[in-house]
Amino acid sequence: MDKYGKRRFDIYGYEKIDTEVLEAIEYEYPGRDTVIEYITEEFSSVCPWTGLPDNARLTIRYIPGEKLVELKSLKYYLTSYRNIGILQEHAVNRILDDLVKLLEPKYMEVIGEFLARGGISTRVVAKYGTMQ
Amino acid sequence: MDKYGKRRFDIYGYEKIDTEVLEAIEYEYPGRDTVIEYITEEFSSVCPWTGLPDNARLTIRYIPGEKLVELKSLKYYLTSYRNIGILQEHAVNRILDDLVKLLEPKYMEVIGEFLARGGISTRVVAKYGTMQ
Amino acid sequence: MDKYGKRRFDIYGYEKIDTEVLEAIEYEYPGRDTVIEYITEEFSSVCPWTGLPDNARLTIRYIPGEKLVELKSLKYYLTSYRNIGILQEHAVNRILDDLVKLLEPKYMEVIGEFLARGGISTRVVAKYGTMQ
Amino acid sequence: MDKYGKRRFDIYGYEKIDTEVLEAIEYEYPGRDTVIEYITEEFSSVCPWTGLPDNARLTIRYIPGEKLVELKSLKYYLTSYRNIGILQEHAVNRILDDLVKLLEPKYMEVIGEFLARGGISTRVVAKYGTMQ
Amino acid sequence: MDKYGKRRFDIYGYEKIDTEVLEAIEYEYPGRDTVIEYITEEFSSVCPWTGLPDNARLTIRYIPGEKLVELKSLKYYLTSYRNIGILQEHAVNRILDDLVKLLEPKYMEVIGEFLARGGISTRVVAKYGTMQ
Amino acid sequence: MDKYGKRRFDIYGYEKIDTEVLEAIEYEYPGRDTVIEYITEEFSSVCPWTGLPDNARLTIRYIPGEKLVELKSLKYYLTSYRNIGILQEHAVNRILDDLVKLLEPKYMEVIGEFLARGGISTRVVAKYGTMQ
Amino acid sequence: MDKYGKRRFDIYGYEKIDTEVLEAIEYEYPGRDTVIEYITEEFSSVCPWTGLPDNARLTIRYIPGEKLVELKSLKYYLTSYRNIGILQEHAVNRILDDLVKLLEPKYMEVIGEFLARGGISTRVVAKYGTMQ
Amino acid sequence: MDKYGKRRFDIYGYEKIDTEVLEAIEYEYPGRDTVIEYITEEFSSVCPWTGLPDNARLTIRYIPGEKLVELKSLKYYLTSYRNIGILQEHAVNRILDDLVKLLEPKYMEVIGEFLARGGISTRVVAKYGTMQ
Amino acid sequence: MDKYGKRRFDIYGYEKIDTEVLEAIEYEYPGRDTVIEYITEEFSSVCPWTGLPDNARLTIRYIPGEKLVELKSLKYYLTSYRNIGILQEHAVNRILDDLVKLLEPKYMEVIGEFLARGGISTRVVAKYGTMQ
Amino acid sequence: MDKYGKRRFDIYGYEKIDTEVLEAIEYEYPGRDTVIEYITEEFSSVCPWTGLPDNARLTIRYIPGEKLVELKSLKYYLTSYRNIGILQEHAVNRILDDLVKLLEPKYMEVIGEFLARGGISTRVVAKYGTMQ
Ligand SMILES: [Ca+2]
Ligand SMILES: [Ca+2]
Ligand SMILES: [Ca+2]
Ligand SMILES: [Ca+2]
Ligand SMILES: [Ca+2]
Ligand SMILES: [Ca+2]
Ligand SMILES: [Ca+2]
Ligand SMILES: [Ca+2]
Ligand SMILES: [Ca+2]
Ligand SMILES: [Ca+2]
Ligand SMILES: [Ca+2]
Ligand SMILES: [Ca+2]
Ligand SMILES: [Ca+2]
Ligand SMILES: [Ca+2]
Ligand SMILES: [Ca+2]
Ligand SMILES: [Ca+2]
Repeated sequence: MDKYGKRRFDIYGYEKIDTEVLEAIEYEYPGRDTVIEYITEEFSSVCPWTGLPDNARLTIRYIPGEKLVELKSLKYYLTSYRNIGILQEHAVNRILDDLVKLLEPKYMEVIGEFLARGGISTRVVAKYGTMQ
Repeated sequence: MDKYGKRRFDIYGYEKIDTEVLEAIEYEYPGRDTVIEYITEEFSSVCPWTGLPDNARLTIRYIPGEKLVELKSLKYYLTSYRNIGILQEHAVNRILDDLVKLLEPKYMEVIGEFLARGGISTRVVAKYGTMQ
Repeated sequence: MDKYGKRRFDIYGYEKIDTEVLEAIEYEYPGRDTVIEYITEEFSSVCPWTGLPDNARLTIRYIPGEKLVELKSLKYYLTSYRNIGILQEHAVNRILDDLVKLLEPKYMEVIGEFLARGGISTRVVAKYGTMQ
Repeated sequence: MDKYGKRRFDIYGYEKIDTEVLEAIEYEYPGRDTVIEYITEEFSSVCPWTGLPDNARLTIRYIPGEKLVELKSLKYYLTSYRNIGILQEHAVNRILDDLVKLLEPKYMEVIGEFLARGGISTRVVAKYGTMQ
Repeated sequence: MDKYGKRRFDIYGYEKIDTEVLEAIEYEYPGRDTVIEYITEEFSSVCPWTGLPDNARLTIRYIPGEKLVELKSLKYYLTSYRNIGILQEHAVNRILDDLVKLLEPKYMEVIGEFLARGGISTRVVAKYGTMQ
Repeated sequence: MDKYGKRRFDIYGYEKIDTEVLEAIEYEYPGRDTVIEYITEEFSSVCPWTGLPDNARLTIRYIPGEKLVELKSLKYYLTSYRNIGILQEHAVNRILDDLVKLLEPKYMEVIGEFLARGGISTRVVAKYGTMQ
Repeated sequence: MDKYGKRRFDIYGYEKIDTEVLEAIEYEYPGRDTVIEYITEEFSSVCPWTGLPDNARLTIRYIPGEKLVELKSLKYYLTSYRNIGILQEHAVNRILDDLVKLLEPKYMEVIGEFLARGGISTRVVAKYGTMQ
Repeated sequence: MDKYGKRRFDIYGYEKIDTEVLEAIEYEYPGRDTVIEYITEEFSSVCPWTGLPDNARLTIRYIPGEKLVELKSLKYYLTSYRNIGILQEHAVNRILDDLVKLLEPKYMEVIGEFLARGGISTRVVAKYGTMQ
Repeated sequence: MDKYGKRRFDIYGYEKIDTEVLEAIEYEYPGRDTVIEYITEEFSSVCPWTGLPDNARLTIRYIPGEKLVELKSLKYYLTSYRNIGILQEHAVNRILDDLVKLLEPKYMEVIGEFLARGGISTRVVAKYGTMQ
Repeated sequence: MDKYGKRRFDIYGYEKIDTEVLEAIEYEYPGRDTVIEYITEEFSSVCPWTGLPDNARLTIRYIPGEKLVELKSLKYYLTSYRNIGILQEHAVNRILDDLVKLLEPKYMEVIGEFLARGGISTRVVAKYGTMQ
């Protein structure tokens, strides 16, 4: 069955992750510990070895400092992972790093709930800072 | 496709938020730390840039001091956001401010769960005072 | 539309709440902190101003001392609220008072989850004593 | 246990069913076989023998002729059943009769899904006219 | 492991099925093809060989002639199966026979959805007469 | 309580329904009876009398002739109902008329499932042409 | 309606609870605080006054010492409650006592979630020892 | 990664399917068109090429002639597929054949709903005879 | 905001759809009208204009002639749509064409349920042949 | 009924558990307390006495040190339990031991939720290390 081995899918490197597009906007209630959560059912990247898709619900929960991430820029940043070859556990941590750098939040966690591969589904939670 | 750019929707300023209509009524058990929660599936405002609607389930949870908000007045106050241009995160904080001023509660939190825009849904939790 | 204004519904006063019917029975394990919870989907009272029905799921959770409430008597007590004009927040607190007096529990909370009125649903939690 | 026997609840006769309040409004698309459905989770009447409440989800599905029922008048008509003593099966048929008389629809069915009594829940479907 | 073989449970014969208690009441809309459905989540009988319990949701759907079954009598009739040893498939058919004899309906079906035994759940549908 | 009577909301006439923005695109499989369904959870219009919002899930199901409706234009057309005063039953029929005129489909039905008003939710189904 | 009064159901005393059949087996990981939970949807006993069935989901959660309960023996022990007349609150406590005596666990809780009687469902939680 | 290629799982041939164990019992209502349905969530076989497990919910729906299948024998027959290498589509058809031969039913269908393999789940429906 | 306009995503033409990889295997029960259904929650293609992803649950239901599609080849064929620019309605029809050519089934339908774009979700059903 | 006693299923000893196949890969964020969770709905082993299958949802939650388990190797390791005779409670503990030895995690818990046997389902939670 090497027929499938020969099938080539696009597998881009980390350099193609579009951190450039990310934009922050001013948050009018910095003093208050507001908890903000963005959820997308459509995060997608590819397996670094096989190039086959990995699909996940992605949740970004944070207590903002002075900045919010602008939603449309967040959408384009996340969509740029579509053909990136990255381990599920590492993708969640990389997204946390990029957004912490952009927003300097008081607290942030990123949760990736990946659909099953080989009958096994994966859930990854990466955190920065403390909730209280 | 500038055809869509030309489409003008009503986008009112913050001054059109109808705080006037809000009314408090006397609470007969002020001593006791009763937790009261109001939920509407139909909160709506518009995006400050495009004028397109933002729709959310809104939850108001509070421990009253001596006053409860009168439900019908709360309905008219929330409905007045329908054509206000306001960022989802800021709308939740503004509602918290208005109701804290009206009721002087021991504790209050307002939760906005906005339907997806560009495949991303937003949940915002703003708090005042402490639960215990 | 004053036609609706004229529609008269029965709105009884608090004196018609049938605390008389309540009965306690002996609990054979008073030493142990057993948590007991009664739930009815069919609690009903009426709005003190309009006489229109308010319907709720009612939950009574308590750690008994030496007494349990006898279920059939609890049913008749709760049913007696059917035509009582009482604010949702106050009904929950009144039920807590009546049952605390009857049972002298170590802890009790009463939760009323009222169906939407004007698109807004109400949840009320009143507590007595401490859980631990 | 005759204590419960003595408990008297209000049980009104059929004459208290408020058909008076019902109002029809003109339907602008009489030619077209539009199917219209009204659903309330809060229909309530009482058992003709015990006076204890019967609660149901009520669905009214019809193909209008030239008239629609005005929603607020429908609400007051249905609410008037609150203390009427009527068998669940008979209530559904009576509502069908009243609305058929008011609207002269091409087709109408009324469905009552009553919560359990003695562990048995009841669903009743009464029809008038033909669907096609 | 014959220890379990020795365990004796009560297994009564068909003669203990309490058809006596069943009662019919007059139906005020015999002309109309109303569909009436009773559902209980708590039907129970025992396996004729082992005496171990069989539990099912039971649905009785019928178009009445001139009679309805009185709900409380139906409850006591169904409860009388509790210790009767009867095959799941045969119980559903016996209930159909008893109720057809009592009510002489235009149509009746009885559905028994039994919880799993040995990892296999059973659903039985027995019918009398025709729907249209 | 005339305070609420005085509250004025924007209530636009039918002329503000933006049929202009609608666009059709060519369908590459006109011969085949493909069934296409668009669903939005966020259709909104206002009550012609009170100006209070009516919110619904809207489903458009059709068998196309030679044209599909372009999705972005459909979104702007539906969003234009936001401040239009129109009866729920009439809105569904008007949308059917506009889309039938634009697309000349073999078959089309529009379903509006409106959230409860006064405890009563409304579902409307308007059809054009035949399914087979 | 004394007809129902005359209906006799089997109501056995506590002595018929089959603690004899219970068996423990050796647990190979006594050092570790493993949390084990057994759930049955089919626990049944009868009301001590009326003999009518009480049905519940029963959950047994424990941290074992050196012994596990053998599942088949647990099934026969629980089934022996079928015709025992016992108050729902007392049944849960009695099961806790029997299993604590058999297993000498580090911690155990028993939860009984009884289906509604007179529209009121009951949930009982009895505990032994401490979780940590 | 040939490491996985080397992993050998048991893959038995069709001859190991235990049709022997199947047993029929007499059905007391052969005249009546009773519809009987058995459902197990735990059917399991293996892929004929890789030996990896295929798991499915299996539904057997039939109108019996004079015979019912004895449930315990059905459980052992289905469990015997555990290590049989058989295509999902073929397993469903083979079970239909075996049970039709045993029971000579008026009608029978077997439905296999297999969990996803490679992100694709499979549902197979095989039929014998006609429903009416 | 032309920043987003500049963002380029891969948008391949129809020629990159990998029909080559598809493989059929022999079906051992061609005579029988077995209904087979494959479901994947992870079908993905891109919008022909913006290059942004379209995600859908895809259902393929068919009555096979003499051939089944081999599941692993179906997975690679569907995955090859990942970066293809194709209208949702046209993708469903193209998949139907490819599989009908491969399998020559008695009947086949393909259903695509696409997640919302601009708040509107799309469901497409394309059919070949007749069910009976 | 000794017929079933004679039925022999494969029951392998613990030595057939394939710990060999397990593989670890390097984790790029060892400093951060990321919580990773793998879930399979398809864990299967057999009862050590009867050889009949035990099926469970298995959840592995851990905070990695420097190593992650490679998913495909985890799948083959778990699949190797298919014909192993092991008590449900012991299987969960054995999996914890094997994975702790492989990964040396900061924290790990394994949860097995086994489907009902004799109407009783079993849930087992085994832990290693501390969460914070
Ligand atoms: Ca930038
Ligand atoms: Ca004011
Ligand atoms: Ca926003
Ligand atoms: Ca008293
Ligand atoms: Ca209120
Ligand atoms: Ca009138
Ligand atoms: Ca009689
Ligand atoms: Ca135009
Ligand atoms: Ca013993
Ligand atoms: Ca009780
Ligand atoms: Ca045989
Ligand atoms: Ca296959
Ligand atoms: Ca080929
Ligand atoms: Ca489209
Ligand atoms: Ca190794
Ligand atoms: Ca066990």
